[in-house]
Amino acid sequence: MSDKVRIALDAMGGDHGPAVAVAGAELALARHPGSEFLFFGDSALIAPLLDARPKLKSASRLVHTDIAVRMADKPSQALRYGRWKSSMWLAIDAVKKGDADMVVSGGNTGALMAMSKFNLKTLSGIERPAIAALWPTLRGESIVLDVGASIGADAEHLIDLAVMGAATARILFGLQRPTVGLLNIGVEEAKGLEQVREAGRLLREENFPDLDYLGFVEGDDIGRGKVDVVVTEGFAGNIALKAAEGTARQIGEYLKGAMTRSLSARIGYLFARSAFRQLRERMDPRRANGGVFLGLNGIVIKSHGGTDAEGFAAAIELGYGVVQDELLAKIRAALERPGKPRRHTQSQALGQAVGSQVLGSQIVGGAAS
Amino acid sequence: MSDKVRIALDAMGGDHGPAVAVAGAELALARHPGSEFLFFGDSALIAPLLDARPKLKSASRLVHTDIAVRMADKPSQALRYGRWKSSMWLAIDAVKKGDADMVVSGGNTGALMAMSKFNLKTLSGIERPAIAALWPTLRGESIVLDVGASIGADAEHLIDLAVMGAATARILFGLQRPTVGLLNIGVEEAKGLEQVREAGRLLREENFPDLDYLGFVEGDDIGRGKVDVVVTEGFAGNIALKAAEGTARQIGEYLKGAMTRSLSARIGYLFARSAFRQLRERMDPRRANGGVFLGLNGIVIKSHGGTDAEGFAAAIELGYGVVQDELLAKIRAALERPGKPRRHTQSQALGQAVGSQVLGSQIVGGAAS
Repeated sequence: MSDKVRIALDAMGGDHGPAVAVAGAELALARHPGSEFLFFGDSALIAPLLDARPKLKSASRLVHTDIAVRMADKPSQALRYGRWKSSMWLAIDAVKKGDADMVVSGGNTGALMAMSKFNLKTLSGIERPAIAALWPTLRGESIVLDVGASIGADAEHLIDLAVMGAATARILFGLQRPTVGLLNIGVEEAKGLEQVREAGRLLREENFPDLDYLGFVEGDDIGRGKVDVVVTEGFAGNIALKAAEGTARQIGEYLKGAMTRSLSARIGYLFARSAFRQLRERMDPRRANGGVFLGLNGIVIKSHGGTDAEGFAAAIELGYGVVQDELLAKIRAALERPGKPRRHTQSQALGQAVGSQVLGSQIVGGAAS
Repeated sequence: MSDKVRIALDAMGGDHGPAVAVAGAELALARHPGSEFLFFGDSALIAPLLDARPKLKSASRLVHTDIAVRMADKPSQALRYGRWKSSMWLAIDAVKKGDADMVVSGGNTGALMAMSKFNLKTLSGIERPAIAALWPTLRGESIVLDVGASIGADAEHLIDLAVMGAATARILFGLQRPTVGLLNIGVEEAKGLEQVREAGRLLREENFPDLDYLGFVEGDDIGRGKVDVVVTEGFAGNIALKAAEGTARQIGEYLKGAMTRSLSARIGYLFARSAFRQLRERMDPRRANGGVFLGLNGIVIKSHGGTDAEGFAAAIELGYGVVQDELLAKIRAALERPGKPRRHTQSQALGQAVGSQVLGSQIVGGAAS
């Protein structure tokens, strides 16, 4: 595939709507001059923004929609009034119809997942999609999934997550056989949830050719970069992601406070300015913005609802990586390979209880909402 | 109660054994001159450490034990060979017998919880103990529980956690009516696990006099200090705690790297030295060392297994706060007050499935192991 990637944008999603989506697309176009954009949303808001950017305008098409999914709506509500006609639905539909290679939205995560699942359908063999996040680590970046698509996971779903996460890591990080860990509490084989133990046993026994299963990892191993892919069900994954984001923000505040408290600290800050800039860039949550929805017949990227143009461009960038390397084809191949274990385990407690409730209120705030 | 607090110490626990326990006790004694210490462990190792500290020695008694619980053992194993005779068991037993006001151990979390539960028993009305951690926030500190005593929680257990956490916050933070939030993903009332929603409904309806329930909080709200008490089941709580610890360590590494990379950064560092010292202190995980086991007939403090003397002293300090304010009496009173909802809810999916498995492998790595 060439640099000519066609991107459908739900311009009404996110806290700042079209302003961020259009400015983000402009940044993405500057980095990938062959891109084409399909904007969906209120043309009265979007057209003036495009008029002010002739270069972007000439690479874009604008489809007017009256309806936008609201950030606070439940997925079921959003589906009820937004199906067939909202900017979010139509942007997803562009991928379905083959008019776009991916869709990016900063909108309501639960609604985006519900609409994507409803319209694009899941890959054969996948019951529940997942949201994968890029997590900055001391060794580079890791993929953490699921960070909030659904709650609870049986052993089979955890294995699906491992396979999909590893396929994504192969593409995004250029690895032959990414290392994979199951998020758990305590590293001894005997600890933790029954279904996590069962998934660990299966991953060890099956010895997949495309992933290197290293065992359990704990919450503090994620930032260490102990494995390339961290697998967990969506409730714990979402809480881990947000706890880490919150801690980074908190330490940023401490640092700012410490560096302005005395004259000598302020002088020190001046000397170390470029070091601080570098640090700020490393800690910048916009760099890792964007969750990839995995397990669907199409590439859907969720951008953080509160991000700015730079963050939105990073989300598009993430999509670039997976589109150009044909993530879907690789995930499909990985799911179909003979090594994949059959669905022979009984549903475990947690998975059994909530596993079937992917739609409705069980789709949740996710990576970024 | 006067400053005369009697502290039983499992001197064999933790990665560094008696060296850290004895040096930590010395620091604690300097801060609380009326303290008395009861050391349990290998006297061949402990006696020389006490001989070198005459002041501490004169405030201490040493009980020799041959057996120490190993860090990697399962709780059931530890109970099998360590009951009645290990340093951990005997230290807990000193609280049971009234010879000590609290016990502090840096040992195996699961074993410590299992032995504490077996020996001290749970408070009337409490089925499962919890581990509460102090979490540094932008507004001060919050209490987060459960951070790993057991996996899964039904609505009733979450309410028990709220009541016990609030009683602890009243004492440690001197608050009349601490604010309480339920950890969830997404803040809308409709999101998240069934049992979390049910607990939220009950907390809102019952309107407890001693706590102010503010609704759901997300992972990034913990570090913001949005509520005084964050309530969650132990799996997600443990992962949140460790993800935050890992992020703090990671940013510390970034900062160190940034400040040594260029000459001007190094000069800046010199000027800002005291600011960095302050920052390091705020980020110091030893400051928040120590998880309090709640719901037992006795005060049990878990110190981080890898901490040093300063961290161990902080864990003792934590116990001081709760012993002097008679935490147990207050929790008992809160549990017995008429406002407490009856156990009228059906066990929810997750709680039902794993709620009864508190012993054995379901007791896990916890705050600190």
